[in-house]
Amino acid sequence: MICAKEREEYIQPLIELTRDDMLAVNKLICSQTNSTVPIIPKITHHLTSSGGKRLRPMITLAAAKMFGYAGDHHIKLAAAVEFMHTATLLHDDVVDESKRRRGKSTARMVWGNQASVLVGDFLLGQAFKMIVKTRSLPCLHILSNAASIIAEGEVMQLTAAKNIKTTEQEYFAIINAKTATLFSAAAEVGPAISGKDEGTCSALAHYGKNLGLAFQLIDDALDYSGIPEYLGKNTGDDFREGKVTMPLILSFSRSSQKERLFWKQAIEFGENNNTAFAKARTFINKHNSLHMTIQHARRFGEKARRTLLPFDPSPQKDALIKIIDFCITRIN
Amino acid sequence: MICAKEREEYIQPLIELTRDDMLAVNKLICSQTNSTVPIIPKITHHLTSSGGKRLRPMITLAAAKMFGYAGDHHIKLAAAVEFMHTATLLHDDVVDESKRRRGKSTARMVWGNQASVLVGDFLLGQAFKMIVKTRSLPCLHILSNAASIIAEGEVMQLTAAKNIKTTEQEYFAIINAKTATLFSAAAEVGPAISGKDEGTCSALAHYGKNLGLAFQLIDDALDYSGIPEYLGKNTGDDFREGKVTMPLILSFSRSSQKERLFWKQAIEFGENNNTAFAKARTFINKHNSLHMTIQHARRFGEKARRTLLPFDPSPQKDALIKIIDFCITRIN
Repeated sequence: MICAKEREEYIQPLIELTRDDMLAVNKLICSQTNSTVPIIPKITHHLTSSGGKRLRPMITLAAAKMFGYAGDHHIKLAAAVEFMHTATLLHDDVVDESKRRRGKSTARMVWGNQASVLVGDFLLGQAFKMIVKTRSLPCLHILSNAASIIAEGEVMQLTAAKNIKTTEQEYFAIINAKTATLFSAAAEVGPAISGKDEGTCSALAHYGKNLGLAFQLIDDALDYSGIPEYLGKNTGDDFREGKVTMPLILSFSRSSQKERLFWKQAIEFGENNNTAFAKARTFINKHNSLHMTIQHARRFGEKARRTLLPFDPSPQKDALIKIIDFCITRIN
Repeated sequence: MICAKEREEYIQPLIELTRDDMLAVNKLICSQTNSTVPIIPKITHHLTSSGGKRLRPMITLAAAKMFGYAGDHHIKLAAAVEFMHTATLLHDDVVDESKRRRGKSTARMVWGNQASVLVGDFLLGQAFKMIVKTRSLPCLHILSNAASIIAEGEVMQLTAAKNIKTTEQEYFAIINAKTATLFSAAAEVGPAISGKDEGTCSALAHYGKNLGLAFQLIDDALDYSGIPEYLGKNTGDDFREGKVTMPLILSFSRSSQKERLFWKQAIEFGENNNTAFAKARTFINKHNSLHMTIQHARRFGEKARRTLLPFDPSPQKDALIKIIDFCITRIN
C-alpha cells in the first residue's frame, strides 16, 4: 500500500516544473472570470479554489515546454483547458444531481442549477476566447473538437445510465469521450503550439488519452473502494446514480443468477440504499473486480509511458511519465 | 394593424435571396447533428424543425453576399450561428423551466433537463468546430466573444429576475448581451469572412445589434400583448417567471403606490396567477407601456436602417433593411 505522501512524490516534479507558469495560469483564470455579474466569479472561485490538482493545465504547460516552446500562448491554452474542465464539472453536477465535490457542497447546492448551467456556458465561451487569442488553428481544431466529443460522451453516459446491459465497449466509448479526450487535448496542444509535426502531436494526444483512461478507471474503482478521503466526494455515487462502470461490468459478467438480479434491482430500479451498496461492494470484492479494473488502468498507464519513450530526455518528459503513477496509485 | 400576410412580405426578399444557401445550411445542420448517440439528432431535430424563421443564419448569408463573398465558409458560419442560438434555447428552457416553445413541448419536457443541458453543450462544441473550419480568425474572434457575452447576459438576467427594482439600464444590458450580441455577430461575420475592413465589419455589427434590440423589445411587448399565435409560446411567461422587462419597467415607473405593491407581490413574491396577469395587462395598457416599448423598438430599428444606408445598393442590403420591419411589426 502506497501512502498519500509517497503518492505525492509522483506529482511533485510536474508541480515544480510548472510552478511559475501555473502562477500565470491562475492569474489569467482570475482575470477571465472577472465579470460585472458578481455570481460568475463567485461560482468559478468556489470550484477553482477547492483544491483540485489542476493536472490538466499542468500537462499542457509541461507538454509545451517539453518541445521548447518559448512564447506565452501555452498559459492561455492551459487556462482554457481548466475552464473547459470546470464547465464540465458544473454541468455534470447538475446532470448527476451531485451534492458534494472535492469535499465541498457543489455550486448547484449553493447557487442553484440555473446559475450552474449558465456559468458553465460562460466559462466555455471564455475558454474559446482564450484559445482564439493564441491564433493557433491547430490548437483551435484540437480543443473545439474536444468540446464536442466531451459533451457527446456525457450524453452517451446519460443514455447508458440505469442500463445494466451496458457493455465494456460502451463503457470505454463513454470514458474515452468524457474524460480521456480532454487529457488528450491538454497534452496535444503542447507540441501543437510549439509548431511540431503531426506525428509528435499525435503521440502526445495518445499519451494524454491513455493517461485519461487510466485516470477514469481508477476514479471508477475508487467509487467502490470506500476511500472517501481520496475522492472528496462520497463513495457509492456511481452506484446510486445507476452509472454502469468497469468494476460493475466485470462483476456482473461473473455473477450468479441471484447476483445479477441484485444488480438489476439496484441499477435499473434504484434499490441502492447503504445496505445495497455494502452488498454491491462484497460482490465487487468477491469477483476481484477492483483489482481487475486497476489492472486495466495499469495497462493504459503503460501505453501512455511507452508513447513518451522515443522523445529526447527532459525534465518535462520525466514529470509527465511520473504522473502516470500518480493517477494510478490513488488506489492500491 | 398589419396582418400576418403583409408582415411576411418584409421577410420574403431575405428568404428568396438566401434560399439556395439555406438548403446548404440545413444540410450542414443535419450532418453536424448526426451522432451515434440517437438522442442528439432527435433533440436537435425537435428544435430545428419547429418552424423557427432562421433569421440569424439568413442574416449571415445575406451579409456575406452583400460584400460579394464567393466561397462557401458563410454556410458554416450560418450553421454555427444557428447552433449557438439553438444551444441557448435548450439551456434557456431548462433555466426558465419552460413548457412550450414555438407551439411545441420544449425538449426538456420530452427528454428531460439533463439531456437538454448536455445536447446544448454538444451543439456549442459543434458550432465552434464549424467556425474553426473556416480558418477565419476574425470570425472566430467575433463568435467566441459572442458566446461568452450571451452566457453572461443569461446569468445577468437570472440575477435580475424577481427584482422589481431592475432599471432600464440593467434591462438594456441584459437584452444587449443575451439577444443583440448574436444578431450583431451573425451580421458582422458576413463582411468579416469577405475580408472587409474593420469599419465595414463594425457597421454590420451595429446593424445587427440594433436589430436585435428591436427584436427583443418586441418579444417582451408580445409577452404582455395577449397574442399567443405570434409567439408560439404562452403570453405572460415573463410575468410568471418574474422577469422584469421593458413594458413592466415603464409601467412601474409611472405606477401609483397601490400598483407598485401589486407588481412587487407579483414579481418578487410570485403572486402571478391568471387573474394577476390580467390585472398586470390593464396596468400596462393604462400607462401605454406597450406602445412606448414599441416606440423604443422603432428607434433601434431606425438606427439599424441608417447603419446600412451608406453601402452600395444591392438586393441583400434591401432585404436586410426590410427585415427590420418584419421584426417590429410582429405587434402593432
